[in-house]
Amino acid sequence: MFRKKVNVVDCTIRDGGLMNDSNFDLETVRTVVAATCAAGIDYCEIGYRNSKDQFDPKQFGKWRFCDEEDLVAATEGIDLGTTKMGVMMDAHKSDKNDLLPASESVIDMVRVATYCKDVHKAIDIAQHADELGYETAVNIMAISHAYMNELEQVLELLDKETNCKVVNIVDSFGALYQDQLHFIISKFQMHLETKAVGCHFHNNQQLAFANTIEAILKGCTWADSTIYGFGRAAGNCCTELLLGFLKDPNHDILPILDVLGSHIVPLKKSIEWGYHIPYMVTGILNQHPTAAMNFMGLPEDEKYDYRKFYTMADE
Amino acid sequence: MFRKKVNVVDCTIRDGGLMNDSNFDLETVRTVVAATCAAGIDYCEIGYRNSKDQFDPKQFGKWRFCDEEDLVAATEGIDLGTTKMGVMMDAHKSDKNDLLPASESVIDMVRVATYCKDVHKAIDIAQHADELGYETAVNIMAISHAYMNELEQVLELLDKETNCKVVNIVDSFGALYQDQLHFIISKFQMHLETKAVGCHFHNNQQLAFANTIEAILKGCTWADSTIYGFGRAAGNCCTELLLGFLKDPNHDILPILDVLGSHIVPLKKSIEWGYHIPYMVTGILNQHPTAAMNFMGLPEDEKYDYRKFYTMADE
Repeated sequence: MFRKKVNVVDCTIRDGGLMNDSNFDLETVRTVVAATCAAGIDYCEIGYRNSKDQFDPKQFGKWRFCDEEDLVAATEGIDLGTTKMGVMMDAHKSDKNDLLPASESVIDMVRVATYCKDVHKAIDIAQHADELGYETAVNIMAISHAYMNELEQVLELLDKETNCKVVNIVDSFGALYQDQLHFIISKFQMHLETKAVGCHFHNNQQLAFANTIEAILKGCTWADSTIYGFGRAAGNCCTELLLGFLKDPNHDILPILDVLGSHIVPLKKSIEWGYHIPYMVTGILNQHPTAAMNFMGLPEDEKYDYRKFYTMADE
Repeated sequence: MFRKKVNVVDCTIRDGGLMNDSNFDLETVRTVVAATCAAGIDYCEIGYRNSKDQFDPKQFGKWRFCDEEDLVAATEGIDLGTTKMGVMMDAHKSDKNDLLPASESVIDMVRVATYCKDVHKAIDIAQHADELGYETAVNIMAISHAYMNELEQVLELLDKETNCKVVNIVDSFGALYQDQLHFIISKFQMHLETKAVGCHFHNNQQLAFANTIEAILKGCTWADSTIYGFGRAAGNCCTELLLGFLKDPNHDILPILDVLGSHIVPLKKSIEWGYHIPYMVTGILNQHPTAAMNFMGLPEDEKYDYRKFYTMADE
């Protein structure tokens, strides 16, 4: 049974790029873009448009910068159908002058990712993108670390000082349980009179998909996902699960199943994202996953000492 | 923050045994028993006490039958603390005459697993176990396939004709979304005037832990889990996640982290449980996982053709 329209933003290459420094070959990116378009997914976020002053192009791949010529290469000849293309700009790691006018770009939507403290930078970039003709959105990261009074002010600023379509709750640490999420959603809905509310969850506690459902049942109309949950550390809400839940007649799960089998599931042999105990521990403790990612990289005879990791992390 | 008392039933060896025909070595079983006891988990379900007429002891390991001498070997010398020991009997695959008096057994609780159609067999076994002095419980399997009018009658029978402490909702196919679960919980609570309500979920759609939280928030006071979700096909709600959520001061997650690192996570190298696309497909389609388990066993050049599996399954 179809429930109601939810705009799905697939960010497989963008969030997955946090696990391989955005070093995807062009064929993989084109296959993901083609699959999301064939699946009728509403938005495909191809990568970051972050600054080359902040990230070394010798280390990071093209999809950390999304130069226009690379976006053309990623999309030309593909029937995009109704799917819109997007990039993400980190408020504190990008330069608004890297944006062309929307009429000259493959990109339809610019999303600005920000911590509460950087909201003025985010507003500056989002409004510049709006003036250039893009749809815009703002993602508020690390929501489980936000001071509630500060968050209320941030939401009111975004509501009044931007033309963005949607503000997204981002549970960067995979820390939120359903009842905590309900409280945050109500804050967003109360203070965002003119914007939609969206969501982006991490799967440290196997709650990314469940919390996406919770958000939808509570009225959120935008949801982020990645194929097989490919994303930083424990990863994200799985696109295939979200399509299965939504049962939107304009979506088709079969092209996603194709790219799962051909490209994404095989990546698991070389990249360790998903549910792992160190990521679970940082989720439970509401911490950034960096320490867990480092622990996952230890030699075989050390990396399974989960008691040691928990005890260190819980100081 | 501690929420409220929930009785955790760890069934790692019992449900995990569905992935290896219950062929665990004694050292593994003893380590899991010792960890659940050191963690203060409320019940440790060691295995099945099913009939040797139904399962060939040449194929199936000791923990499919749980002969008393094997239970003694699994527990002797271990400080059980407050943890009670349990076995499961399938209503249609076990013989009530295999039960000793409780006073002569290691076992504290006998749980009878049944489909709605076999409820009279379940009542017969549960009442026999009750007369022998055991605590008893009934698990209603494949709840997502139950006819609602039949389920109501089953619940009323169990309420009136057994002394069991708890009746468990079992989402064998990992098919339920939260709002569907809420409806089923309300049915259980309405028709079980004298019993507690518990839950056992499968993780085909990464909802086993989330649905356990939902059940707890809706008033369920018993919850099943397995370490690292080790169980049939996509597996179960993870014990480590459940302890992290409950924050029960009588529980301790550290012994579970120890056995995760020493015994359970390494099992993943040889046994493929957990989130896999074929299991997800049967979850979405509300089907038994057998076809998915067979598909997972295909050669490498066939097992990633997820479109083919979905198309076959969705006929």
